[in-house]
Amino acid sequence: MLYFILSHVLGGLAGVAMVSDFSVGLYEREPPIPPGEYVRVSYEVLKSFTHELFVSAGLSLDDAEVVADALVTADLMGISSHGVQRVRRYVDGLLGCCVNPRPKVRLVRDVGAVALLDADGGLGHPVGVKAMKIAVEKAKVFGVSLVLVRNSQHYGIAGYYALKAVEEGLIGVSVTNSEKLVAYVNTTSRVLGTNPIAIGVPRPKPPPILFDAATSVVPVGKIELYAKLGKTVREGWVLSQDGSLLSGDANKILNEIKNGRAAILPLGGLGEEFGGHKGSGLAFMIDVIAGVLSGAAWGIHVGYTTGEKPANVGHAFAAINIESFMPTQEFHARIEKYIEEIKSLPKHPQADKIWLPGEKAWHTMQTRLKIGIPLHKNICKELNQVAKNLNIKNKLNCDNSTPPT
Amino acid sequence: MLYFILSHVLGGLAGVAMVSDFSVGLYEREPPIPPGEYVRVSYEVLKSFTHELFVSAGLSLDDAEVVADALVTADLMGISSHGVQRVRRYVDGLLGCCVNPRPKVRLVRDVGAVALLDADGGLGHPVGVKAMKIAVEKAKVFGVSLVLVRNSQHYGIAGYYALKAVEEGLIGVSVTNSEKLVAYVNTTSRVLGTNPIAIGVPRPKPPPILFDAATSVVPVGKIELYAKLGKTVREGWVLSQDGSLLSGDANKILNEIKNGRAAILPLGGLGEEFGGHKGSGLAFMIDVIAGVLSGAAWGIHVGYTTGEKPANVGHAFAAINIESFMPTQEFHARIEKYIEEIKSLPKHPQADKIWLPGEKAWHTMQTRLKIGIPLHKNICKELNQVAKNLNIKNKLNCDNSTPPT
Repeated sequence: MLYFILSHVLGGLAGVAMVSDFSVGLYEREPPIPPGEYVRVSYEVLKSFTHELFVSAGLSLDDAEVVADALVTADLMGISSHGVQRVRRYVDGLLGCCVNPRPKVRLVRDVGAVALLDADGGLGHPVGVKAMKIAVEKAKVFGVSLVLVRNSQHYGIAGYYALKAVEEGLIGVSVTNSEKLVAYVNTTSRVLGTNPIAIGVPRPKPPPILFDAATSVVPVGKIELYAKLGKTVREGWVLSQDGSLLSGDANKILNEIKNGRAAILPLGGLGEEFGGHKGSGLAFMIDVIAGVLSGAAWGIHVGYTTGEKPANVGHAFAAINIESFMPTQEFHARIEKYIEEIKSLPKHPQADKIWLPGEKAWHTMQTRLKIGIPLHKNICKELNQVAKNLNIKNKLNCDNSTPPT
Repeated sequence: MLYFILSHVLGGLAGVAMVSDFSVGLYEREPPIPPGEYVRVSYEVLKSFTHELFVSAGLSLDDAEVVADALVTADLMGISSHGVQRVRRYVDGLLGCCVNPRPKVRLVRDVGAVALLDADGGLGHPVGVKAMKIAVEKAKVFGVSLVLVRNSQHYGIAGYYALKAVEEGLIGVSVTNSEKLVAYVNTTSRVLGTNPIAIGVPRPKPPPILFDAATSVVPVGKIELYAKLGKTVREGWVLSQDGSLLSGDANKILNEIKNGRAAILPLGGLGEEFGGHKGSGLAFMIDVIAGVLSGAAWGIHVGYTTGEKPANVGHAFAAINIESFMPTQEFHARIEKYIEEIKSLPKHPQADKIWLPGEKAWHTMQTRLKIGIPLHKNICKELNQVAKNLNIKNKLNCDNSTPPT
């Protein structure tokens, strides 16, 4: 968050209704749930509340800080699927059998520009930040680095870690495997995770470039969002186990995926004609490095946060030191020229705007720092219930659209 | 080639008609041009002929060896768009203004696990092999490495270099930028190259895993192939400059692309619904590292082999030393288990087979080492014409389907 916060003059938080108007500097990439169904909560309130929850669930103060920041940053960026709606799942995992609240992260290997960490079954966020910190230190010495992590859990948005390198002026790369949801090309069942790849690139001024994409045609969070909004899913996202393409009611389709009767298609879609072998090949390659080479689980073996055994998720973090190749100032001048060229391309008539990777997320973040994060009332109430179960007295105000301050 | 050749007992080359039958161990991923329009030429003959051409066009014996091997390997793999059909273009470039036949490759930077090479305007293949060799040496010391190349030219198939790392038991990564052909998401004109990414992963026995894919929905070579075969292009590959999707006659569409009135779509297609921002974002990120960070050209500035100025193509090569993370034997056992699991997935009813990345190319290579490379008679004659222009007496036999021996 630091990188973003520094660039931002915190606006007034109180009394702002739902607005999304780019011309007055307000923009949200993800439509908030229809008015009346959400409340606006400030970043600070939501983060400190989330922090308290994780401390009560057993995390150290420092680890809780990282997990809370990663989740609330996702909400700020408009990636609510990876935001505080994951809190219950994480807390269930922490209180259940298989997420270790007090992991002893071990540096298993540390040779030259590479390292391997064992996360000891803890959540992926704290170990992810540690791993990227090591990657940055090593890249400053060796020019490039690669740090793998095994025996981890869900780590939230891949871009969070890429930005940690960007904050230090380096190019950051972050990938992870994840529980099976996606079909491998020419097959019909869930075998690959949505295995995202994030690449962050510094710019002289924010926003930095932040490419952060699942290697599936859509992340599962998008189908979850459609389900919540009552929208229909178009043909080309989801494959039934009989080989047919599913479309229609997002709730039904989400159910089919969760029950293992359907799979999300890889980027490039069904078969090879539009590149389904590319998307599933990329997901497979990410799993080979983050899963197979790290010593973590891979493919069908990657577990879930609330599963009956440690999820054994694997991550990979890389950093590239720009100064090893050219002065940062020269790199900045070149990247700004490239961006200028992209921005002045002829826009497609049906497109709203020409966006850089990460630009929508950044504008959404600036907006939500000003007017608060839209939190679905059901999620808000769920968080309060989690708090109550943990004997926490604090609670979020879920009953009106005036953001708590 | 070495890696593959070693694993192969060279079969008889003479008198084999066109066969492609997987059950008898013969398979070709790319359909040879209809019978009567091609001749089968052995790998050795085609490579030595190509070598002679490049030596006569001014390359050193060593550089000609690499360029010839890279091109003929692409033909063996069934990627004829990157095979000897490029010879004329390369020779024209070498005899023209802007491809340097005798480049003095300079090691501009060499710090820790990274290096930067200036290719001095020579063809990309020799400098690519040099760069990957450095990457492998560095990864053996530091665990991971990154070598960038600027001021280069077209380097053929990205996978060729990834395999050089695989031959040494390492994971190899190779990316390049290339002349503008692809639209950035939400825009309509050619700005990005097909910017491929290749990742090679060793296995205990061949074939190695070789992911090698353009970040466009299709490589331009596929449209060129369709044009030659008189096939029609389906909607979703090519975008007109007015924003409409083009389909139909591949020759017409190819012409529109070449004249700048159409662009190939990124992987993920038009807009964001199926991930066009992911494909174009990946292509952009590859260009940021291979082009912007290396000091090469980027985007619209990347030149063509026969252009009026040096193309200034940029490449990036990375290697990962498996032994830095786990014993190779353990990695092999894990990757084989994963492959076994993929191979036993339920096959899609419309799919022919479940393929690993690179598997089709490998089987095609084995087949063509046995029965020869199918060479379109027009390309064959073109090569003879190039030879004649260079005062070479040798020529290929282009007039019957009995492969020359």
